[in-house]
Amino acid sequence: MRASAYPMLAAEEAAGLVLDRTPVLESEEVLLEAAPGRVAAADVVAGRELPGFPASAVDGYAIRSADGGGRLRVVGESAAGRPFTGALEHGAAARILTGGVLPEGADSVVMVEEVEQDGDQVVVPEAYGAGRNFHAPGADLRPGDVLVRRGHPLGSAEIGLVAALGIDRLRVHRRPRVALMSTGDELVEVGRPLGPGQITDSNRWALLAALREAGAEVDLLGIAPDRPDPLRELVLGAVERCDVLVTSGGVSVGTHDLVKPLLESLGEVHVGRVKLRPGKPFTFATLPDRKLAFGLPGFPVSSLVTLEVFVRPALRKLQGHSRLHRPELPVRLGYDAMAGGDRTEYQRVILRREGPDLVATSTGSQSSSRLMSLAGAHALVRIPPGDDGYPAGTYVEALILELP
Amino acid sequence: MRASAYPMLAAEEAAGLVLDRTPVLESEEVLLEAAPGRVAAADVVAGRELPGFPASAVDGYAIRSADGGGRLRVVGESAAGRPFTGALEHGAAARILTGGVLPEGADSVVMVEEVEQDGDQVVVPEAYGAGRNFHAPGADLRPGDVLVRRGHPLGSAEIGLVAALGIDRLRVHRRPRVALMSTGDELVEVGRPLGPGQITDSNRWALLAALREAGAEVDLLGIAPDRPDPLRELVLGAVERCDVLVTSGGVSVGTHDLVKPLLESLGEVHVGRVKLRPGKPFTFATLPDRKLAFGLPGFPVSSLVTLEVFVRPALRKLQGHSRLHRPELPVRLGYDAMAGGDRTEYQRVILRREGPDLVATSTGSQSSSRLMSLAGAHALVRIPPGDDGYPAGTYVEALILELP
Repeated sequence: MRASAYPMLAAEEAAGLVLDRTPVLESEEVLLEAAPGRVAAADVVAGRELPGFPASAVDGYAIRSADGGGRLRVVGESAAGRPFTGALEHGAAARILTGGVLPEGADSVVMVEEVEQDGDQVVVPEAYGAGRNFHAPGADLRPGDVLVRRGHPLGSAEIGLVAALGIDRLRVHRRPRVALMSTGDELVEVGRPLGPGQITDSNRWALLAALREAGAEVDLLGIAPDRPDPLRELVLGAVERCDVLVTSGGVSVGTHDLVKPLLESLGEVHVGRVKLRPGKPFTFATLPDRKLAFGLPGFPVSSLVTLEVFVRPALRKLQGHSRLHRPELPVRLGYDAMAGGDRTEYQRVILRREGPDLVATSTGSQSSSRLMSLAGAHALVRIPPGDDGYPAGTYVEALILELP
Repeated sequence: MRASAYPMLAAEEAAGLVLDRTPVLESEEVLLEAAPGRVAAADVVAGRELPGFPASAVDGYAIRSADGGGRLRVVGESAAGRPFTGALEHGAAARILTGGVLPEGADSVVMVEEVEQDGDQVVVPEAYGAGRNFHAPGADLRPGDVLVRRGHPLGSAEIGLVAALGIDRLRVHRRPRVALMSTGDELVEVGRPLGPGQITDSNRWALLAALREAGAEVDLLGIAPDRPDPLRELVLGAVERCDVLVTSGGVSVGTHDLVKPLLESLGEVHVGRVKLRPGKPFTFATLPDRKLAFGLPGFPVSSLVTLEVFVRPALRKLQGHSRLHRPELPVRLGYDAMAGGDRTEYQRVILRREGPDLVATSTGSQSSSRLMSLAGAHALVRIPPGDDGYPAGTYVEALILELP
């Protein structure tokens, strides 16, 4: 047994190496129903104006505003989808329903609550200005307006806009396919009894949830065999079908760790150790055909934190997001955050509001095996290497996982 | 044509009426793979300790700390899943790999980087304290610890914890099934050509995205017929299969609006008009068998805002969330926010960081037809009824949709 031969890279350097080597996946067309959450692969530009006609915003009467104050004859109706035909003459009004076309000649709509009805006549208020209570053509969108920017995710408003223009499909980036496997002689499938020194494979289920949240389609490959040749076969098959390989465990320096040598033989290992707590043994390799391989540490917290720090931004780049990282907000530390020596430390915190401030308290012991330190965590506080850390009361930027 | 007979309720009163009448759906068991994002229907409690044995945190040598400074004979190995058998005697060390069981008699692990190797012997540092570099049994979880609280969504850490305890399925609340239809004579399916006064049905696609984000399973029912009897048939069939009916359009006071009378005939209409901008015609009814019906206004922004204000909290209650509403943060207004007279107004804003502050700027014209006012919006600023509004520079609480 010997110490690792891989250089210890700074966390920021390792993150940069990963993103520099991550491609953007090609695009595909999807129907509107499948578009939510996908990322636009091109700007979407309006080809016509919205609304396409002057549309009433209320139920009421379309009038010529010059007739304000008068008693007007009701000559017809303009309902949504059933326009009034012909032009509205002086002294006349047309009943109009929300969404109905403003008749030719009319220039204002009086709300039903504002008129006095009298048989087939209505009395409308005096000095009722032009342009009231309808949406003018092009008021919402003009041809050439950009509805959705390339690299932005498609939310409900964006999809509504695209549909309103009559577009029924969108060009989005393909989602990354991720092959996920756990390695380790000690692992047992969940639900099976444990022998001496054995533990349940929990990382696969935690990583599955995190990978899906990051937009990946996950191919669950179970617990990998602990002998080099079958492991190699499994990985080769997975890499054939997927864009990304994610393993957990098997990347420490012990004699039974097989992942790093295998990745060395299949491609190029760029990161083999990182000055990061938790997550020192994090491994990143590129494989032929622009595939990526991430060897995550076996400890539960280490695997999820390295996924958050290195894999999630890469998955977002693959699917074309222009924004790769979690949002950050300033938080006031409610505890003394000790630094991790030569390693960047990601501490898991709970946030609570105190006046205008978000106050961060530790989730307790930050042991790399203690998943409870991530359960319910609202944010990660990044403590740079050094001896000092930050005393309670310091304001720091935190990576927000979920607001309290 | 007459003014609406429904009383105008305050927005807060209407929101309260909706939630008071919204039940929590029953629970079901799902496998871990299907658990992400679901809501725990019961507390999950640890039935055993984690780790279940003293497990090495590093690769190194298990020793008796009393032997610190000595030259020790390496008598075997404890790899993950393959424990060293027997007890470790004085003067002996066992190679131990990350995750390996600490042998009986050993009380500390020296990291491989800290020893001097010499054939089958190792020299370990002096004064090497007990308890180093391993996770003690029960250090992470003890029997009776609560891993997941009822009403909390299941994220990656929670699912990992459950798996680590050997639990392969979870009791979660059922997702609400929502029947979604658009109403309006003027509507045309996306992709089809438009006649005079016609518009593309865009609400259905925008609402589909928003309903899915809120955790619903959506049954897309298309554009509803505009005659009472076929509409009634469609709605009856939908309500049979679903927990919630969501319509858009057809809730204003015009003669062609059929939704409110139909809901009156099927159940009880509790909300027919709200002092809300946008979204005045919002309608809420209860139907037999604890089903809910939401009649959203037809204007695109009105439908999405009323979904956000009234429907999303109800969908979260149905699926058992203990937290029903969007998180709020204080933002500094970067514009003069005018009040909407007697109506509560939800203004859509873009947020940007300026020092420690989040500064809100308007998304532009807040017309109820202008979906661009929601595209890319980070937050909703709620302006209470009145004549004053808030001048630029005021700090207000904003409902956060997405952080910048």
